[in-house]
Amino acid sequence: MLNLSLINSVNTVEVNDDFTMLWILLSGILVFFMQAGFTLVESGFTRSKNAVNIAMKNILDISVGTISYWVIGYGLMYGASNGWIATSDIFFNPGDGPHDVFFQTVFCATAATIVSGAIAGRTKYTTYVLFTIFLTAIVYPISGGWQWNGDGWLANLGFIDFAGSSIVHSVGGWAALVGAWMVGPRLGKYVDGKSNVIPGHNLLLGALGVFILWLGWFGFNGGSQLAWGGDDSAAASAVVMVTNIAAAAGAVGAMATTWLKDGKPNLGMTLNGAIAGLVAITAGCGNMTFGGGFLAGLVGGIIVVFSIEFIDKVLKIDDAVGAASAHGVVGAWGTLVIGLWGVDGDAGIGLFNGGGGSQFGIQAIGVLAYGVWATVTALIGFGILKSTIGLRVSEEVEIKGLDEAEHGIGGFDGGGFEAWIKENTK
Amino acid sequence: MLNLSLINSVNTVEVNDDFTMLWILLSGILVFFMQAGFTLVESGFTRSKNAVNIAMKNILDISVGTISYWVIGYGLMYGASNGWIATSDIFFNPGDGPHDVFFQTVFCATAATIVSGAIAGRTKYTTYVLFTIFLTAIVYPISGGWQWNGDGWLANLGFIDFAGSSIVHSVGGWAALVGAWMVGPRLGKYVDGKSNVIPGHNLLLGALGVFILWLGWFGFNGGSQLAWGGDDSAAASAVVMVTNIAAAAGAVGAMATTWLKDGKPNLGMTLNGAIAGLVAITAGCGNMTFGGGFLAGLVGGIIVVFSIEFIDKVLKIDDAVGAASAHGVVGAWGTLVIGLWGVDGDAGIGLFNGGGGSQFGIQAIGVLAYGVWATVTALIGFGILKSTIGLRVSEEVEIKGLDEAEHGIGGFDGGGFEAWIKENTK
Amino acid sequence: MLNLSLINSVNTVEVNDDFTMLWILLSGILVFFMQAGFTLVESGFTRSKNAVNIAMKNILDISVGTISYWVIGYGLMYGASNGWIATSDIFFNPGDGPHDVFFQTVFCATAATIVSGAIAGRTKYTTYVLFTIFLTAIVYPISGGWQWNGDGWLANLGFIDFAGSSIVHSVGGWAALVGAWMVGPRLGKYVDGKSNVIPGHNLLLGALGVFILWLGWFGFNGGSQLAWGGDDSAAASAVVMVTNIAAAAGAVGAMATTWLKDGKPNLGMTLNGAIAGLVAITAGCGNMTFGGGFLAGLVGGIIVVFSIEFIDKVLKIDDAVGAASAHGVVGAWGTLVIGLWGVDGDAGIGLFNGGGGSQFGIQAIGVLAYGVWATVTALIGFGILKSTIGLRVSEEVEIKGLDEAEHGIGGFDGGGFEAWIKENTK
Repeated sequence: MLNLSLINSVNTVEVNDDFTMLWILLSGILVFFMQAGFTLVESGFTRSKNAVNIAMKNILDISVGTISYWVIGYGLMYGASNGWIATSDIFFNPGDGPHDVFFQTVFCATAATIVSGAIAGRTKYTTYVLFTIFLTAIVYPISGGWQWNGDGWLANLGFIDFAGSSIVHSVGGWAALVGAWMVGPRLGKYVDGKSNVIPGHNLLLGALGVFILWLGWFGFNGGSQLAWGGDDSAAASAVVMVTNIAAAAGAVGAMATTWLKDGKPNLGMTLNGAIAGLVAITAGCGNMTFGGGFLAGLVGGIIVVFSIEFIDKVLKIDDAVGAASAHGVVGAWGTLVIGLWGVDGDAGIGLFNGGGGSQFGIQAIGVLAYGVWATVTALIGFGILKSTIGLRVSEEVEIKGLDEAEHGIGGFDGGGFEAWIKENTK
Repeated sequence: MLNLSLINSVNTVEVNDDFTMLWILLSGILVFFMQAGFTLVESGFTRSKNAVNIAMKNILDISVGTISYWVIGYGLMYGASNGWIATSDIFFNPGDGPHDVFFQTVFCATAATIVSGAIAGRTKYTTYVLFTIFLTAIVYPISGGWQWNGDGWLANLGFIDFAGSSIVHSVGGWAALVGAWMVGPRLGKYVDGKSNVIPGHNLLLGALGVFILWLGWFGFNGGSQLAWGGDDSAAASAVVMVTNIAAAAGAVGAMATTWLKDGKPNLGMTLNGAIAGLVAITAGCGNMTFGGGFLAGLVGGIIVVFSIEFIDKVLKIDDAVGAASAHGVVGAWGTLVIGLWGVDGDAGIGLFNGGGGSQFGIQAIGVLAYGVWATVTALIGFGILKSTIGLRVSEEVEIKGLDEAEHGIGGFDGGGFEAWIKENTK
Repeated sequence: MLNLSLINSVNTVEVNDDFTMLWILLSGILVFFMQAGFTLVESGFTRSKNAVNIAMKNILDISVGTISYWVIGYGLMYGASNGWIATSDIFFNPGDGPHDVFFQTVFCATAATIVSGAIAGRTKYTTYVLFTIFLTAIVYPISGGWQWNGDGWLANLGFIDFAGSSIVHSVGGWAALVGAWMVGPRLGKYVDGKSNVIPGHNLLLGALGVFILWLGWFGFNGGSQLAWGGDDSAAASAVVMVTNIAAAAGAVGAMATTWLKDGKPNLGMTLNGAIAGLVAITAGCGNMTFGGGFLAGLVGGIIVVFSIEFIDKVLKIDDAVGAASAHGVVGAWGTLVIGLWGVDGDAGIGLFNGGGGSQFGIQAIGVLAYGVWATVTALIGFGILKSTIGLRVSEEVEIKGLDEAEHGIGGFDGGGFEAWIKENTK
């Protein structure tokens, strides 16, 4: 007689492959769209005279990121590894038709685009191009493999970073902090020791950008289940729900903080709070109850407000959009919180209650490892660029805006074109 | 010998669960994005001095909506019910891992955001926060359960509202109308008995918002099939197609109406016509032929033009974006039209031809029930807020714009910042 | 004993149908969103005084396109055909519940919207409405059937156009070129034989539009697999990846070209380069290695720069957004490149190495056929309109902007409304 369980099993596997490939592909498409969100957030939160430059940088992130990750990055990350770096099968997507290569590509581009925001408004375009190649081809893939390559040393240690609070966001965030520090503050940012606010030129587009990021994050976190079918369907659905709760809590946390602290609910901080909520749940979205995700996001939204102020006013580093705080500092928080109230499975039992805090220790090792790696490589990368072609545009170019000087055109109304057209058309 | 049909059946069920969860999750993600669409429509159709406030309100809708619906709303709607209200299992998503909780959450947030547009430009932010909590935690969930809880009294009556023309849109629309009336018109709206047009500050972003709403509506209506697999796949695909046809017909209907009536095709009305077409098909998208959907949308697009003018010029209620018309009035139309030319199944036979109009009567009961409920609860909610913290900002704040006064920052170019930066950077 | 392979086969077919319908529906939803992208690109790259008109045209494209393709277009394209035109089953979606009708509808609307950009800023709205009906009901469906109707003469010839480089993009592109030529250049475009740049009013929104197009193109190309399940899952995933690579290469190709040629990396051209990369891979995305797609996109991105300059400065045809180049010229390139380095299947063996260039010849026939068809029908369509209602607004209307004259309202801040509101509200 026929073995029923065998049939079911065979069918299920086949079906699950189709499901998994569909879910990963759709998730990757959602993550791709985050590039548009980053463009709007970075541009909306900064001056209009740099909008063309910012659009160019973000188009570049996905374009150069796609190419360099395809050529070498994916191989460095997922090739045969000694735990620290791939030592064979490096070039051109090793493996037998990896169906997640698109998904992994858009993750890599996300790490690159985080740097862009912090150094907006004064960095040479050529410099940015070269650093982006360095980050997407070398920096992110190597450290990404420590965890997401099955043979990575952090994976073997038991480190948990489901969708990349550390692997993607904090790596981008720390590189952004180093970049912002080395490039130096925008003109007028610090005058007589006082930090001035340089307001964004279009907060409405900044808000649209955050909505797009929030949307894309459902693919970022949900797709990191890397499977659909059976228990995976329920798990990925729960990941999306807890991601939404954490984002909501982050927005509310930041809004309430500014309301209590400054007397008015601040939009820029609320938007950064939503991003912080999302970053805070990225590592733990597979190991959090809805309540745990709520708390992780809420604390993330509070942290981001104080972190932005600390970096701005105490460290006096001019991070134009708060990227180092939202992605770096909160990325560390999101990684560590798993060691505080993460859970294992549906049972709702604390993974780490009985473990004497050991998971927290492992998480801290991971946070430290990604922090050191991103900081050191960014110091090397920006250092070489500084001593060769330079990091920064001239004072004249910065005042005029990078759009005209670096790209030959203003982003809005063509820079005084209206007067010309009126004359020339009577 | 093995029973073949049994195997197939078992497999199909298992597969269908994975399909259904995937379709509902993806639909929920699409519906989430509608929040960005509402933000752009509301902001684009109103003055730039209130753009920050509008972004704050819409970020709040999804954030507070997510939290309050998670904590209590979902339970009130889908818990064990006596037909009118859940009487047990109210808190924190009752049921064994409900996989539609994210999908239902974003529906709830949609109802909230409809109110936002109508009362734009003069309402206190604190007031809006409190009303949104009230709407998402109490108002929407209770009446939503009348139909979408399997034990709801309207469901038992045979009421049809596939995706919520009444349950979501008209509830939001009637609450919006009450709010707009109680808050009162914007300054300058009615002068010497004449209604002035207060034009939007960015119709292009308004148009982008409508495209995003249209996009998200495919998830709103299609996802309300609440299943994928077998006949459900074909049914949900048809729902998306008829939704698209109705939206197109609504846009054309409104455009033609303004063209004939005023001599020029009007963009604002055409955009509202597309929304009206979508609202008009939301209740009946599971019970309409393509031709029936076309007519429902076309009539919806015509209705919305006259409804907006009636509310504006006759009732003299200042609904800043026409939300009460597009969602309330047309929501009622979309619910009733099922009783006129709705069909049951693929056969194309009128459901109600032989029924002597009884379905129309049931639909009318539902329209009335949601109308009364939304109106009464909104009167109570806004009434309590009016008599305590007040509904409206001061005249000075309104003229200056809510952005500066309520949130401390302008949305665009930082409110005169250009002059400052020019001086401070030489 | 039960035949195991039969069971699997039965199940697989059933499952694949559900998969296929889901994938096609989701892809169609992504393609729909491209309408928003086209709106932003066209509007962002042109003057603000025409933004309302552009939004109206693009809302119209999807609305009228949906209706005319539903009524007649789908039937003309997929009805019983003699190879050149459907001769029966023409009206109202013939066939037993075609589940791709939504997917095909949004393709049709895409072809229409390409024309819109080229003739922006001076074309009568009524004229545009009528041409759009003509294009979506007659022109696109008939020639589309030559290849995508199973009985089409080009399909029988062995022509390859996976997702429509020729069928959709070059048809739109050539019609756009004819339109731009017949309508004539915008005032001030050519003065004393010199071509002036008329810059866009909001390049940031143009960039957002390109991100949206890029996103939607994953559905455009990936969905054209028209199947999901088994090998189709892997194939469609590869289509999305190669599409992303080609878009990236196109952006880099155009950026590098302008950088080398003009000394500065140009945003407008880089964005057009991304579109060109996407168009260049649209025909061959099912027959390209990743490397082949990279080269196809890279060359497409270089071509588009020179093509835009050639049409502008040599032909002196004023294509306001470069649509004829990005969609027409590069559409031809994308179709022909299959005959140069296309492959058949996973083996990586050149399809045409052994074929003596015959596939290139077939591709050239297709390019020619679509070019002649689109040019001739556009000449007829615009010719009739020119000799009846006219193509072009008056000089006065053009200078003032189409928004005020054709639609009665400006797109931004309501045309001097701020002064009024300040007076009227004290």
